Amino acid sequence: MSECLMTAAAAAEAAARVMARCDALAEISETPGELTRVYLSPELLRANAMVGKWMTAAGMKVWQDSVGNICGRYEGQQVGAKALLLGSHLDTVRNAGRYDGMLGVLTAIETVQYLHDRGERLPLAIEIIGFCDEEGTRFGITLLGSRGLTGTWPESWVDHPDANGITVAQAMKNCGLNADRIWQSARDVEDFVAYLELHIEQGPCLEQEQLALGVVTAINGAHRLNCRFVGEAGHAGTVPMSHRKDALAAAAEWMVYIERRTPQVGPQLVATVGTLQCQPGAVNVIPGDVALSLDVRGPEDGPLSALLADLLAEGEAIAQRRGISFSAEEFYCIAATACDAELQAALTRAVVQVQGRSVSLPSGAGHDAIAVAERWPSAMLFVRCDRGISHNPAESVTTEDVAQAVQAYVQVVNEVAGGA
Amino acid sequence: MSECLMTAAAAAEAAARVMARCDALAEISETPGELTRVYLSPELLRANAMVGKWMTAAGMKVWQDSVGNICGRYEGQQVGAKALLLGSHLDTVRNAGRYDGMLGVLTAIETVQYLHDRGERLPLAIEIIGFCDEEGTRFGITLLGSRGLTGTWPESWVDHPDANGITVAQAMKNCGLNADRIWQSARDVEDFVAYLELHIEQGPCLEQEQLALGVVTAINGAHRLNCRFVGEAGHAGTVPMSHRKDALAAAAEWMVYIERRTPQVGPQLVATVGTLQCQPGAVNVIPGDVALSLDVRGPEDGPLSALLADLLAEGEAIAQRRGISFSAEEFYCIAATACDAELQAALTRAVVQVQGRSVSLPSGAGHDAIAVAERWPSAMLFVRCDRGISHNPAESVTTEDVAQAVQAYVQVVNEVAGGA
Repeated sequence: MSECLMTAAAAAEAAARVMARCDALAEISETPGELTRVYLSPELLRANAMVGKWMTAAGMKVWQDSVGNICGRYEGQQVGAKALLLGSHLDTVRNAGRYDGMLGVLTAIETVQYLHDRGERLPLAIEIIGFCDEEGTRFGITLLGSRGLTGTWPESWVDHPDANGITVAQAMKNCGLNADRIWQSARDVEDFVAYLELHIEQGPCLEQEQLALGVVTAINGAHRLNCRFVGEAGHAGTVPMSHRKDALAAAAEWMVYIERRTPQVGPQLVATVGTLQCQPGAVNVIPGDVALSLDVRGPEDGPLSALLADLLAEGEAIAQRRGISFSAEEFYCIAATACDAELQAALTRAVVQVQGRSVSLPSGAGHDAIAVAERWPSAMLFVRCDRGISHNPAESVTTEDVAQAVQAYVQVVNEVAGGA
Repeated sequence: MSECLMTAAAAAEAAARVMARCDALAEISETPGELTRVYLSPELLRANAMVGKWMTAAGMKVWQDSVGNICGRYEGQQVGAKALLLGSHLDTVRNAGRYDGMLGVLTAIETVQYLHDRGERLPLAIEIIGFCDEEGTRFGITLLGSRGLTGTWPESWVDHPDANGITVAQAMKNCGLNADRIWQSARDVEDFVAYLELHIEQGPCLEQEQLALGVVTAINGAHRLNCRFVGEAGHAGTVPMSHRKDALAAAAEWMVYIERRTPQVGPQLVATVGTLQCQPGAVNVIPGDVALSLDVRGPEDGPLSALLADLLAEGEAIAQRRGISFSAEEFYCIAATACDAELQAALTRAVVQVQGRSVSLPSGAGHDAIAVAERWPSAMLFVRCDRGISHNPAESVTTEDVAQAVQAYVQVVNEVAGGA
């Protein structure tokens, strides 16, 4: 095994800086004592400015694009060379953790800092983007930043209101942007050769493997549905068990099936009932109406569709056996995104070099790479997080893991942008 | 089979009057277009006055007692004779049906009307009570009327507030009653030989039997508990099925067990999960915390306790298997009330005489007879209601069934009060 480009000591120093910067960014929040930073908010603009300053310090040319992404470019050996794009997002969910998104932007800056400190230029330029909206917290629509880059904003998005009725277009105006210029954020397909994104895993697999880093094979496709069982409400004391049309009992039978059936269809498939409302909802009344959500995800569209069809057929069968009704309406669907095989191989080489072995795993969560992969070869590097906890103030990574992440990231950036 | 005392034609006339009076009482409501009549409201006092007028017309001496029950007495052959007590309640739930409670009071009046029209007196007097609070709609405490009669109001009840903070004592004062005189509503144990209550079934059993009338064996005992599974919330995309501590999946497994196990322990037992709240309650988050209610009922305390213990043990076992926690706290418990065997036999004879055969069934719902039975032999006669629907404007009985009910009621009153 060859030496890592970056020494462990240098990586430790870079990791300490990354952790301090995550802390500094976590201070920029609309809610004191919590981290909430949403698209087109004053806080997001302040975070952009802070990250831009760090990019500048790493020798990058910095600008904010027309949808609000903070962008930096470190020139290659030839001015105007094609670039390797690195990035992740700077927006958060409400009461968020401080690493989801930010860690990917700040480790990317360290790869450029490493080159800048040594006065090195690679054959390719390196660009870094801090995307302005991945989570969709404010407007309920997601990937607004990365879809600015790919030029794939649906026209309807500018009219989309937030909870206060402020549209995207108005919110852009309120922070000095212009909805008429969204198109300017789109980049030519020739600008980039590839996109890499580093992100916390947000799941427990790396922790179980006792590894700091892993390589993503695919970003899971997902279907989300609103489902409903409608039976008949009744008096909890007077209707014998044999006469009931209990919508909650039907839903319970279905949930047990979902949990048992999903891993049978495929070990990487997941299915979740995350919400359930039970009507009329009184201790002494048999539930007549249950609304519940179903979220299914998997790294390949075929098995995922098969699972969904299987689960819905069983929901229908349960309802029929009980003489009640079942319905399901899909309100969100996203295809699986396979990561680029060559980039995965490069990431795997770098990870093996840093931690001795690598592991490949699908991403259960969505990422900016979903949008970017529509236009450019894309891949992702995952960093272990404590107990898989994410979207929560308890989200946590260790400085030691981040040091390994920076080392591996420097390695792969040099390989991909170095044309080695 | 001997002839019924009351001819079918006379019963039909009485039933028509009962139905018209149910309609008239249903007009006395605090909410236009709906029926809501709660304890110590102006509407309840108006209903009392109307019922008192009908009692008077049936030859009864009428008074309102110190907790607000409307009472009437039809003397026996000797003034001051012991009485057979008949009754039910005149208060309602919110947006109620028009028969729950009222039907029992109005049919009772017809039994006296029958005697009065013929100038007959029986060895026993007949008293009728329209109880002022069975449902507990206003104060959340139940059976205030019948516990006035038995003299078993806990001291704390007078300080109990309604949703607007008005205490029972203040509400009594506002309608001309005096909390210091509650004790005056208590009756000597020697006053009555027995209590009979006619009520709609509020369940589907008589309808299934295709019978208008049935005899109640017992009023089910009940336990109500707040239960909770606490697992671990997690990302619906990133946590593999095998790593989850899904509180809702655990609850589902338990609910399936409850539904399957309950009829195995006893065919007359019922168990209901009527409420369920799931936290954090997002489509894309594995539920970490589920609160749900459990209501179990049965006609005998022993099997009911055994069922409850069985269900709670399984909740605990499910939680342990899944590495999560389960807890359950009982917040309401009432013992089963067996109906008096001799009175049941008398009711059965009357029902057989009227409809050819009888059926015996437990009452799943609570009734004034629970309180009254603590002091006097008590029994109940059930009348079929449409699809078992109750506590709902769709609550419905047929005039034909009510005619049979009046016929049977006249029969049994003559037997019990006639000393035949």
